[in-house]
Amino acid sequence: MRDNQSLQRLFEACEPRRQELFRRLNLASDGTYELVKMREDLLALLREQPELAAIDDDFAHLFGSWFNRGFLMLKRIDWNTPASILEKIIRYEAVHEIQDWDDLRRRLDARDRRCFAFFHPAIGDEPLIFVEVALHKGLPSRIQPILSGESSGESRHTKKAVDESEDADTAAFFGISNCQTGLRGISFGNFLIKQVVQELSQELPQLKYFVTLSPVPGFAQWLQEQREDEQLPPSLRKALKGLETAEWHQDKALEEPLKTAIRPLAARYLIEEKNRHGLPLNPVARFHLGNGAELHRINWLGDISAKGFKQAAGLMVNYLYVLDDIERNHENYTAKGAVACSSDVRDLARRARKLAKGETTK
Amino acid sequence: MRDNQSLQRLFEACEPRRQELFRRLNLASDGTYELVKMREDLLALLREQPELAAIDDDFAHLFGSWFNRGFLMLKRIDWNTPASILEKIIRYEAVHEIQDWDDLRRRLDARDRRCFAFFHPAIGDEPLIFVEVALHKGLPSRIQPILSGESSGESRHTKKAVDESEDADTAAFFGISNCQTGLRGISFGNFLIKQVVQELSQELPQLKYFVTLSPVPGFAQWLQEQREDEQLPPSLRKALKGLETAEWHQDKALEEPLKTAIRPLAARYLIEEKNRHGLPLNPVARFHLGNGAELHRINWLGDISAKGFKQAAGLMVNYLYVLDDIERNHENYTAKGAVACSSDVRDLARRARKLAKGETTK
Amino acid sequence: MRDNQSLQRLFEACEPRRQELFRRLNLASDGTYELVKMREDLLALLREQPELAAIDDDFAHLFGSWFNRGFLMLKRIDWNTPASILEKIIRYEAVHEIQDWDDLRRRLDARDRRCFAFFHPAIGDEPLIFVEVALHKGLPSRIQPILSGESSGESRHTKKAVDESEDADTAAFFGISNCQTGLRGISFGNFLIKQVVQELSQELPQLKYFVTLSPVPGFAQWLQEQREDEQLPPSLRKALKGLETAEWHQDKALEEPLKTAIRPLAARYLIEEKNRHGLPLNPVARFHLGNGAELHRINWLGDISAKGFKQAAGLMVNYLYVLDDIERNHENYTAKGAVACSSDVRDLARRARKLAKGETTK
Amino acid sequence: MRDNQSLQRLFEACEPRRQELFRRLNLASDGTYELVKMREDLLALLREQPELAAIDDDFAHLFGSWFNRGFLMLKRIDWNTPASILEKIIRYEAVHEIQDWDDLRRRLDARDRRCFAFFHPAIGDEPLIFVEVALHKGLPSRIQPILSGESSGESRHTKKAVDESEDADTAAFFGISNCQTGLRGISFGNFLIKQVVQELSQELPQLKYFVTLSPVPGFAQWLQEQREDEQLPPSLRKALKGLETAEWHQDKALEEPLKTAIRPLAARYLIEEKNRHGLPLNPVARFHLGNGAELHRINWLGDISAKGFKQAAGLMVNYLYVLDDIERNHENYTAKGAVACSSDVRDLARRARKLAKGETTK
Repeated sequence: MRDNQSLQRLFEACEPRRQELFRRLNLASDGTYELVKMREDLLALLREQPELAAIDDDFAHLFGSWFNRGFLMLKRIDWNTPASILEKIIRYEAVHEIQDWDDLRRRLDARDRRCFAFFHPAIGDEPLIFVEVALHKGLPSRIQPILSGESSGESRHTKKAVDESEDADTAAFFGISNCQTGLRGISFGNFLIKQVVQELSQELPQLKYFVTLSPVPGFAQWLQEQREDEQLPPSLRKALKGLETAEWHQDKALEEPLKTAIRPLAARYLIEEKNRHGLPLNPVARFHLGNGAELHRINWLGDISAKGFKQAAGLMVNYLYVLDDIERNHENYTAKGAVACSSDVRDLARRARKLAKGETTK
Repeated sequence: MRDNQSLQRLFEACEPRRQELFRRLNLASDGTYELVKMREDLLALLREQPELAAIDDDFAHLFGSWFNRGFLMLKRIDWNTPASILEKIIRYEAVHEIQDWDDLRRRLDARDRRCFAFFHPAIGDEPLIFVEVALHKGLPSRIQPILSGESSGESRHTKKAVDESEDADTAAFFGISNCQTGLRGISFGNFLIKQVVQELSQELPQLKYFVTLSPVPGFAQWLQEQREDEQLPPSLRKALKGLETAEWHQDKALEEPLKTAIRPLAARYLIEEKNRHGLPLNPVARFHLGNGAELHRINWLGDISAKGFKQAAGLMVNYLYVLDDIERNHENYTAKGAVACSSDVRDLARRARKLAKGETTK
Repeated sequence: MRDNQSLQRLFEACEPRRQELFRRLNLASDGTYELVKMREDLLALLREQPELAAIDDDFAHLFGSWFNRGFLMLKRIDWNTPASILEKIIRYEAVHEIQDWDDLRRRLDARDRRCFAFFHPAIGDEPLIFVEVALHKGLPSRIQPILSGESSGESRHTKKAVDESEDADTAAFFGISNCQTGLRGISFGNFLIKQVVQELSQELPQLKYFVTLSPVPGFAQWLQEQREDEQLPPSLRKALKGLETAEWHQDKALEEPLKTAIRPLAARYLIEEKNRHGLPLNPVARFHLGNGAELHRINWLGDISAKGFKQAAGLMVNYLYVLDDIERNHENYTAKGAVACSSDVRDLARRARKLAKGETTK
Repeated sequence: MRDNQSLQRLFEACEPRRQELFRRLNLASDGTYELVKMREDLLALLREQPELAAIDDDFAHLFGSWFNRGFLMLKRIDWNTPASILEKIIRYEAVHEIQDWDDLRRRLDARDRRCFAFFHPAIGDEPLIFVEVALHKGLPSRIQPILSGESSGESRHTKKAVDESEDADTAAFFGISNCQTGLRGISFGNFLIKQVVQELSQELPQLKYFVTLSPVPGFAQWLQEQREDEQLPPSLRKALKGLETAEWHQDKALEEPLKTAIRPLAARYLIEEKNRHGLPLNPVARFHLGNGAELHRINWLGDISAKGFKQAAGLMVNYLYVLDDIERNHENYTAKGAVACSSDVRDLARRARKLAKGETTK
């Protein structure tokens, strides 16, 4: 008991006074939001004044407690949402930019779309994070039809929009955006996805698949580094040469070899390239694999926007959330760094190894 | 900067693991309320198992952060409030018991009554603390007319209830009840009173006085100790002898000398009797003086219920909240232990000193 | 076209000016409710001043339009409903009196209870009509266990309350109360029952039966008239003699012959005794049969309260709402006065005919 | 009494069956809105099929009862209003078109703007009528600064927006739009203005003037007719010749004589030109004068948009609502057709009479 008391006194002695200061600032009206904006300012200063990091630690510690998932509220965002919130959705969308109100309406106000956000009761109308969902027949492989509002899966040409949400067997998460820079590092996305899966399962019991259609930021740069590597087998180097031609995806003769070469390389990049903590180099992979998802499919020409080519040679990835596997995947990932992936992706990675040795794959 | 980092590492090292455990329990649905109930159980065990105090420290630390005033919501409680909340008001009222639904209605559902409670967004319908207010013409001195719904100040015999809230110049706080044992020590009352003063000022700009009608728990016991003190001057001893007669307040011959003796003693008790921290012995005085209120008036026969006599020889006290003085009073109190009081009460205390010397006062 | 215009002018000419007056009164704040109370006063005067009937016709005409089902809102009433509404439920319950708040809570705040009311947007918190529902395993035959909160069907002794709403296969409507005397004759009950059936089907898809447990007002009086009829066969007269003994239902020797005689008579009363419009004499039967329900079962000793004996010799009736039959039943009833009833009840009626001829039935 | 009954029977006999049909259609879900749309279709047919007028009479009669002011709900429209309602505001604005969401925001989401709409509880999110208000220091004379969001009265150059609503002494109603063609002829505007005046008085007690800034549709056409009149004095004809020059308002030499001639003519047009019912020819004047407002000021170059010139030679009018005069103005207007107007406007009308005689005015 003596030890307990000493420890408690030590804890009290070394808890930075700043935390108490922040708690007192929080007493003021709108204090919570002001503190979040204060940290946003602080983060902007950190690069030049690294000595401020201790202050940031205190913010992070308090925010981790205050923005605990138990305090967050999930709200559906749709065309009945107040305009003051919707304009923030337009502003904060970080994955696939929303052009204007018409574009927003196309994304939200259809029978086959859903959008959910986390709010904190002390920060009123400011969303913390939101996710956009398209209901789909089958797993979607391309983002453009989703953004343009054309697509709800294979059946779209023959069915009316009204029926689409009933036909859908898949909920595709195609955009997750954090809204508050000042809450960087406070983790919401994991909880958001899981709660949205629950909400959708209840509303639409016919849904079978919960899957993302995710970007692969950093892949194009990694690919470029491979090409600059002198060890690269000539066969592979030759195949990748097509990348130098503008609009290569319009030219079948260039596209085919590129597809044969790049998809395996992407599987290798996502599974095998690790950062200094032994976790996947790719941040999106880190997020979804850490949540317990499976790396399910690599979609060739999944994003044919300028940004899509520049970032990932046009690739997009499906991460699949299988409720029964999430726990095990998460455990394996955090304990052993093991990456859950489908047999298709595993095959691709195997092929990548052969390519690396100069062997030609089918 | 090195020091900062070391300190941060030390803080992280000695922050009890339990706090992180509690934060994770809070992820679960209804987790916050379960943790509050958990601490309630813990507090019940503490007396017999003092070694659990360290756990309680962790609860207190986290709850202090989670139940920061910035996260609380003030709600008015009235007859339009859901029955599920009202039944909790009946259950939690700790100062002047509410008998049943009719009694509750009498206290809430009149033009001259108000009730406000703090809620926490993660604990839904459970009030944390609430305050009952009677609008009054002049400062009220007796609790019974308020509880029976008879009184709205001197004008009540000639006016209809409808006019009463408009005539009122005083908001009398006659009951503040904490609802959650598991939140013991987390301070809400201060903020509640101040915010209710604001709300009422806005709704009823004609209000001039914000005052309590408060009990004096412990005074009867202290008085008894005085009587057992051999140093007590005979004149005073004689006057206090009346207390031994049942129903003494019905007998003018007994009541008068008691009044002359007891009111000064009460002033002395409230102002001069201190605990080991140098603060007033009386907990209610400690609360309101600490909030910056003034000890304004000692009301003879303010509470003629059995409990009132047993607890405080029938006395009640008005603490006055003067917005312009709150800050200064609070500062003087916390810095120097100075008790803000009206000249009337100060006179009483002076008389008490004379009585103690055996002098007779007028 | 000329005719149309003439007719329109005639209509305008003979529409009572009062209707326009009422529409203008309705412009005032709370006007709608005041008009409803005005008609309540009027109805009280009508008996003595029948010449006021024309005013009542105007009220009825306007209210029929204003309180059209399209304007009503269904709300669930439960323990989270504001106290100001709940106290009205206590006051307006007309079938089985609610004693106090504890009684109310017993009726509302259990997993196996539901209550729904219609409100009108211009009359705020005043319910127009409400229905109380008990979820039950099997069709209930007796009201006392429902009122005391004991019963949820046969399984109640072994199951916990938590499971009861899941086990239930029957929703029993055991009280429908009109709240506003001023809306007499404006029909809501029909719509209320049908919408509540829809709501409950959606919430609890396992429900199979929607049934009432209804009183039989007027039956005891009718029975008395039978006994005073000199034509009554001696055998029947003898059997009914038991009614003269107080507490006859406690005496097996009296009860058995009464049961044998009275149930058939009740079937005959409900099916064959008609008013001057050729519709059932019994008003409750008229209501439910007119809604398309089936006269399903006559429950011996269904209501053993003093009121139950006095009104209906202890009988209660189940009317069954079978969604697929409602339309046809309603048509047959309104077109031909045909009473839909179960084969059991039909058998009872047949037996009544034999009894009337002095034949003894099994 | 006999007469009463006969009359009632006659009324019942000649009330068109259609009204009962419409009441029954209203039982269906969304029935009310469908009926409103049905009448919208009917109105479109009426011109070609005038024999349908009788049906329209029935709609008008029922809607007059159903959309009685007692059933309407006033709601504030602002940037926190659901987008689904705001897009209807954009669509329905009939006076000064709203270009897009940015324009809408400019009109709604400033401290010095208000917008209110009437809704009917059975028609959910569909506004029936709405009014746009600008808070202003002094009476506004020109619409363009209001539409562009520049203006809040004379003080705007030196004050920040934040202070503007506090400085304002005038609420200017600059747009009233009916939303539902199917409710044509059912009068809401009158009640809307009066209730909004009440709301604003309560929110902003410093407001002294409630005034419109209204268009003068039909004035340009009337002016043209004057010019074609051979009786027109040469002096006046000459002054008006300036209208033939494009962009005349940019040319001081043209503008001055036009101003001198046209403002008096407008006063005459508004006050003296009557329709066959003896009421002002101008429909906007009819509306506001019928509501009890005063014709307060004629604003030269009040609307310099193309539409403003085409419709009213650029004029706009202030109608002033003085609460104490509304009743009297309304009475005088309906009883005697008397037009309440300010002495300035009266002077202008006098001058018009001189002009008509060929006299030159100052």
